[in-house]
Amino acid sequence: MKNVVIYDSTLRDGAQSQGISFTVADKIKIVELLDEFGIDYIEAGNPGSNPKDMEFFEIIKSKKLKNAKVIAFGSTRRANIPVESDNNVNSLLHAGTDHVAVFGKSWDFHVSEILRTTLDENLNMIFDTIKYLKNHGKEVVFDAEHFFDGFLENSEYALKTLEVAYDAGADSICLCDTKGGMFPLDIFNITKKVVEKFNCEIGIHTHNDNGMAVANAIMAVEAGATQIQGTINGYGERCGNANLCTIIPNLQFKKGIKCVEDDKMRELTVLSRRVSEIANAAPDERAPYVGRNAFAHKAGMHSDAVCKNTRSYEIIDPELVGNERVLLLSEVAGRSAIIGIINEVDPTINRESEKTKQILEKLKEMEFKGYKYEGAEGSLKLLIQKVLGMYKPSFKLIEFKVIVNEPSVDDVNSSALIKIEVDGQEEITAAEGDGPVNALDKAVRKALERFYPEVKEMKLTDYKVRVLDSNSATAAKVRVIIESSDGNEVWSTIGVSTDIIDASWIALVDSIEYKLNKI
Amino acid sequence: MKNVVIYDSTLRDGAQSQGISFTVADKIKIVELLDEFGIDYIEAGNPGSNPKDMEFFEIIKSKKLKNAKVIAFGSTRRANIPVESDNNVNSLLHAGTDHVAVFGKSWDFHVSEILRTTLDENLNMIFDTIKYLKNHGKEVVFDAEHFFDGFLENSEYALKTLEVAYDAGADSICLCDTKGGMFPLDIFNITKKVVEKFNCEIGIHTHNDNGMAVANAIMAVEAGATQIQGTINGYGERCGNANLCTIIPNLQFKKGIKCVEDDKMRELTVLSRRVSEIANAAPDERAPYVGRNAFAHKAGMHSDAVCKNTRSYEIIDPELVGNERVLLLSEVAGRSAIIGIINEVDPTINRESEKTKQILEKLKEMEFKGYKYEGAEGSLKLLIQKVLGMYKPSFKLIEFKVIVNEPSVDDVNSSALIKIEVDGQEEITAAEGDGPVNALDKAVRKALERFYPEVKEMKLTDYKVRVLDSNSATAAKVRVIIESSDGNEVWSTIGVSTDIIDASWIALVDSIEYKLNKI
Repeated sequence: MKNVVIYDSTLRDGAQSQGISFTVADKIKIVELLDEFGIDYIEAGNPGSNPKDMEFFEIIKSKKLKNAKVIAFGSTRRANIPVESDNNVNSLLHAGTDHVAVFGKSWDFHVSEILRTTLDENLNMIFDTIKYLKNHGKEVVFDAEHFFDGFLENSEYALKTLEVAYDAGADSICLCDTKGGMFPLDIFNITKKVVEKFNCEIGIHTHNDNGMAVANAIMAVEAGATQIQGTINGYGERCGNANLCTIIPNLQFKKGIKCVEDDKMRELTVLSRRVSEIANAAPDERAPYVGRNAFAHKAGMHSDAVCKNTRSYEIIDPELVGNERVLLLSEVAGRSAIIGIINEVDPTINRESEKTKQILEKLKEMEFKGYKYEGAEGSLKLLIQKVLGMYKPSFKLIEFKVIVNEPSVDDVNSSALIKIEVDGQEEITAAEGDGPVNALDKAVRKALERFYPEVKEMKLTDYKVRVLDSNSATAAKVRVIIESSDGNEVWSTIGVSTDIIDASWIALVDSIEYKLNKI
Repeated sequence: MKNVVIYDSTLRDGAQSQGISFTVADKIKIVELLDEFGIDYIEAGNPGSNPKDMEFFEIIKSKKLKNAKVIAFGSTRRANIPVESDNNVNSLLHAGTDHVAVFGKSWDFHVSEILRTTLDENLNMIFDTIKYLKNHGKEVVFDAEHFFDGFLENSEYALKTLEVAYDAGADSICLCDTKGGMFPLDIFNITKKVVEKFNCEIGIHTHNDNGMAVANAIMAVEAGATQIQGTINGYGERCGNANLCTIIPNLQFKKGIKCVEDDKMRELTVLSRRVSEIANAAPDERAPYVGRNAFAHKAGMHSDAVCKNTRSYEIIDPELVGNERVLLLSEVAGRSAIIGIINEVDPTINRESEKTKQILEKLKEMEFKGYKYEGAEGSLKLLIQKVLGMYKPSFKLIEFKVIVNEPSVDDVNSSALIKIEVDGQEEITAAEGDGPVNALDKAVRKALERFYPEVKEMKLTDYKVRVLDSNSATAAKVRVIIESSDGNEVWSTIGVSTDIIDASWIALVDSIEYKLNKI
């Protein structure tokens, strides 16, 4: 039995994030991901304000979804015009969804200062719009914008806006903390009053401007709300919306309130990362449940405790949300964390071995230079091989020369010449590329193919640059992390240097050596 | 009158963050910043577990602080040894602070499974350690680790650990949600019980594993807690600690509970950013109150409303915390946002002008290519000048050639040759550098100095790279943002290209043109 419905607004409120701009294809992809995951409602856009959204609704009509109901979102009619002449409202009909969401003002201040109309006309606007959409057979969600702010300043009027929506036939009423400034106890008490008063689904929509969006949504559920609005990864304007990737596991695993099927929960981390990829936003490493660090244990004592019993420092088993435990390597981490990886390279070494000490010392030395192996396990394994004397380089660089020309010739501005040696045999070759690193990458593989045809199987799948001490401006140290794949396995390698070409080269060499050493 | 005390653990629990590693100098700098800001307690390290921390305490002794009390942190004595032979406990004495914090276990599960001792011995460990430190004249904070988890499973034992600490003379007792899994109502109810029972300062220490650390700290304050532990920017292990940069303004501006002086509050944003700089962690743009986007309004309707009355979509005036309002430029933003910047270039243009439309169209075109002008106002003003036909380039590039050699010669691996033209006069020169961008930067300034001596005044102060579509690996598009300063003004410029050298060049040219055009 489901106790709450999850209402995702990643494609509407989430798209208001600074830096996020979804194409129509992006939106379709995200709808498919959300549907597959088991989200109940997908608020997908505002057909009245955005021509791109109209195109989206045209396409989505023909898609067969498993569970999710797609929602078109818009405002109540403008003041002082008949609802049937309001283009925005009519665009909700034309979007062709069975469900629509309409937002109206519940805060008298917004009615007079922003809409600049009368309190009565605002009530008419809410009533007329909902009635009109109901008459056209739509299921209607009423989003009571600024409801809580309104309630605290003029509770009578705020409640009146809900009554009018209810009387017009709204199927559910969602209470919005639009500015994101509410405190948990207020949310709890006010929501409780509304739940007691209205006999329809009550929803909660919170923003994170005071850092309490998730807690506020949870408090509303504790007070009886059963529809939870939020976004994947908490995307949204300003400080974002309530993060569904946090709320869903909170309710499902800690409150026993089922939001999606348990086996779907194991896809939560992947969902979060896929959406951040599509949004082209860096994933939040500290994000609860789904972040890369959510189950990362650094302190030596904590690492040890987690090795004894994971319950000691973990709120759930990371596998339940498809995430994983990470025992961090660092000055305070100690040996428990690293021994597992050492044993993948050489199973005979234990934590008391002299070798383990040597590896830890080498690690510290490299970390001091700016290396971080938590995201570069490929390089870490090579480093362990090196300390253990097991590493045999597959090739030797004699020299390379990378030339960047401006203006470029035939749109290619970079070329790389490379000379390598394998078992006493030299190979010299060159390649052109889109930028110096790309040219160098192509050249080295080309040179190696003669000796190692398997380098053709591998390709670089990700390339990340981070400036380490940006105070030194263009002479700053950079850290390059490269992700490679051969179709079976994915591995990451790292390079650090004041020179981005050099840092990239170090990571490229590790990437190739990892493949050729088949660790 | 102060109602709560703020207890910062950035240097202790915050230093457990993945990716953060403070030097002794970093720690001293942060203590000075926190003290200046008005933080009451600064938990600065664990002298028993970390030799670096011992060095820190040696130095900090001689510093005269304004308000803050520095705290040395450590655990209760080990099981089955006399407290006076415990090295960790003694290192708390040797740290030389007037205040110490001692953590002990309040959850029976942790006592038996992790410490692997008896419940009685754990009580003795707490008592002995606090008594010993009190006998040596210290003020003692007792951190009741896992108190809430413990209370829910065995409330009698959890409370017993507090009683023992109280009886031993602890000056304050801090209730810890060490795993970060508690829900707000539980925190409220349990804290209330403790506050009623003990006649000493009760603190709250929360973690963010379920995304509710801030709300939980607030709920504890609502229940009567008066000491709030947290970290700047919420740094901390896994998902982080309660973020003081959120909690402090929440209490100060929304609850009327004074945490620091009002005029100090205006330095909160700077404090947050300085600490993230020292920690070498990218600032969270979405962070409440202090994030770059915290008061950024994108949606056209929201921008318009904020222009009418800022209260409509802002929980406080951004100036109260030293942050600023940003009206974002984008497809949904509309004209209100951009007109202010246009008017800085040409005050005669209004939002209805044809020119404004042309600028918006150019902006859209550039944003489509990956440009983002919110962080690159220097380039934005140049772009406006270009559209308005006001732009006159100070120089023309004839060509450049950058060469990167491996192996490098005399540790210099990059050289750049450049040929430019100013008013029909050509200048050709070259420079070497630490990496290709650095060489190019030096070469172009060298070439320009003859014509424009004022380029000597400016220097690059920051250089940032972001990979835009990392799926294309080394051929991915990169966005470079450069910050420059001439001592009076700071400006940022942007370049986007698949080639990092090219992207850097575009940003460099804008940076120089901005200076020479004195916009």
